[in-house]
Amino acid sequence: MSNATIIAVDAMGGDFGPSVVVPGAIEAARDKGIALLLVGDQAKVQAELARIPLDGVAYDVVHASEVAGMDEKPSDILRRRKDASIQVACRLVRDGQAHGIVSAGHSGATVACGMFIMGRIPGVDRPALATIMPTEKNPIVLLDVGANVDCKPHHLFQFGLMADAFARDLLSCESPRVGLLSIGEEEGKGNTQVKEAYELFKLAQNGINFVGNVEGRDIFSGEVDVVVCDGFVGNVALKLSEGLSTSLGRVLKRELLSGLLPKIGTLLAKSAFRRFAQFVDYAEYGGAPLLGLQGIAFVCHGKSNSKAVRSAVKLAATFVEKKTNERLIKAISANEELTRYGKAIK
Amino acid sequence: MSNATIIAVDAMGGDFGPSVVVPGAIEAARDKGIALLLVGDQAKVQAELARIPLDGVAYDVVHASEVAGMDEKPSDILRRRKDASIQVACRLVRDGQAHGIVSAGHSGATVACGMFIMGRIPGVDRPALATIMPTEKNPIVLLDVGANVDCKPHHLFQFGLMADAFARDLLSCESPRVGLLSIGEEEGKGNTQVKEAYELFKLAQNGINFVGNVEGRDIFSGEVDVVVCDGFVGNVALKLSEGLSTSLGRVLKRELLSGLLPKIGTLLAKSAFRRFAQFVDYAEYGGAPLLGLQGIAFVCHGKSNSKAVRSAVKLAATFVEKKTNERLIKAISANEELTRYGKAIK
Repeated sequence: MSNATIIAVDAMGGDFGPSVVVPGAIEAARDKGIALLLVGDQAKVQAELARIPLDGVAYDVVHASEVAGMDEKPSDILRRRKDASIQVACRLVRDGQAHGIVSAGHSGATVACGMFIMGRIPGVDRPALATIMPTEKNPIVLLDVGANVDCKPHHLFQFGLMADAFARDLLSCESPRVGLLSIGEEEGKGNTQVKEAYELFKLAQNGINFVGNVEGRDIFSGEVDVVVCDGFVGNVALKLSEGLSTSLGRVLKRELLSGLLPKIGTLLAKSAFRRFAQFVDYAEYGGAPLLGLQGIAFVCHGKSNSKAVRSAVKLAATFVEKKTNERLIKAISANEELTRYGKAIK
Repeated sequence: MSNATIIAVDAMGGDFGPSVVVPGAIEAARDKGIALLLVGDQAKVQAELARIPLDGVAYDVVHASEVAGMDEKPSDILRRRKDASIQVACRLVRDGQAHGIVSAGHSGATVACGMFIMGRIPGVDRPALATIMPTEKNPIVLLDVGANVDCKPHHLFQFGLMADAFARDLLSCESPRVGLLSIGEEEGKGNTQVKEAYELFKLAQNGINFVGNVEGRDIFSGEVDVVVCDGFVGNVALKLSEGLSTSLGRVLKRELLSGLLPKIGTLLAKSAFRRFAQFVDYAEYGGAPLLGLQGIAFVCHGKSNSKAVRSAVKLAATFVEKKTNERLIKAISANEELTRYGKAIK
């Protein structure tokens, strides 16, 4: 496995555990020549492996005797569950045995274990959870979507630098347009946090293409590539988008099927909803990258199916191969003084 | 005009000024027996009045020589534009000549003039802008959607008390379910501001039906009647909803029309989109009530058509007639200690 990208996958995570994580990860490994470390209960993981073809896949099972419970506090998991699969996976990265992790388990635990076991990149105060959202045009990166609920302006600034580095590789785009989520496009609009972050972005070094404030209505029009906000606002935005899409979908389906021509309505609805579904299909990208760690980390939705796990493992490997973290480290260090300035003014 | 409800309408406000405001207000007055004071440039208002039937409508024109510019700061409008139509309208309420105002003009100016000319209700620190949003079930009240971008926990608490009073009359509902917008349903989830506001809501007097935290995805499912958040989050949520609905609508329309049966697709789409459009039709309720003032105030969208103005004027009159502000005053005074406690802990 020496030259391959090695991804440690938390095999126990998610609502469906090894039954979807193991096949999804194996498929990704086969598709892309990734070397896998499947971390979890040896017997359960082996039982799933026995069900599927494994030819041509480089994998190993790393036993972990515990699983992080969904109702446990991240700090308790970190302190007390030393043999939880997520902890073991993070230690593999810390010890140089893997390049990245993917987990569909307790996302708070992944953030905590990633931060304290894998460690942060110097100059990053808070790792941020980024989500990749489809829009009418290109997909965009929205962050933070929940890792940090109380943020200072310089945290938002760091989020922007990190997302810029990721968006370049994700969207294969030379100069992603980075916008700050606010409540008016003009400079000077927003709350105190956003207004101060704006000042930092204006001064940013290393060629970040800061396009100023963007409003809620601009997220889905695809006019920017990166949207920066704090984890409270981002999480509300993400869940509101999911909820509204689902509600609108239900309303429309009902209307189409109750129309004059219900059978044709069904046919048309089916095709139309295929595109619509992409707006809410988390499986498309599979997971949310957790940026700012020493190594690549991907958080998948608890409801992930094997397609989502496969996408996330492949995307994690892409970021390893494109050395996205090296780009991120450069962006942060080029702006070291500014993030210090940010701290000084708060 | 002695016994009628009197609404002062800023005839100059909005992108289309008197040409839509005057006919919309006159129609509302005729529908509901409201007495109107049309505030603005006498000549321009009279010119619009000359175009429409006025039989059976009680109205008067109050001259105002200035108009608040959309690019002016609210504080400048308040200080320097003493004869702006929005200032004159607010003074009519202050002086007891009208019960409420409706404006489609500069919303920041309406907030500023409402607050400093009409005055706040004792115990209300910050007036809040509420929006009435359609959901799959009943419409809900979301506030604040932009009047206050930096809020303390006790401000959120006051918003909840105010919205509760309004929702009772708006939704004709005995005990509206009031939720706090957060990023997890369990108590203890959210940022510092929300967690502290939660404590205040738990202790609330006067029979508020606080149902705890709600997430972004719960807004449109109609499981609550009132959703409380700060003005930054609320404005992002409102604009994101508008943007996403519009984007999804465009995607679906394109898919339906490019299907196998484009003509039937067009037909079906037309009927389906009628319902869909209700999700984004601000004209349905016409405007956003600005709560916490001595008098009723409604802020309309700048793009308002005459239907929206008519709806807003009628709804403003409804709140006057139902004495909603008296209910609001009671709720605030019953919780006086708690809002003081809120101030003490921040």
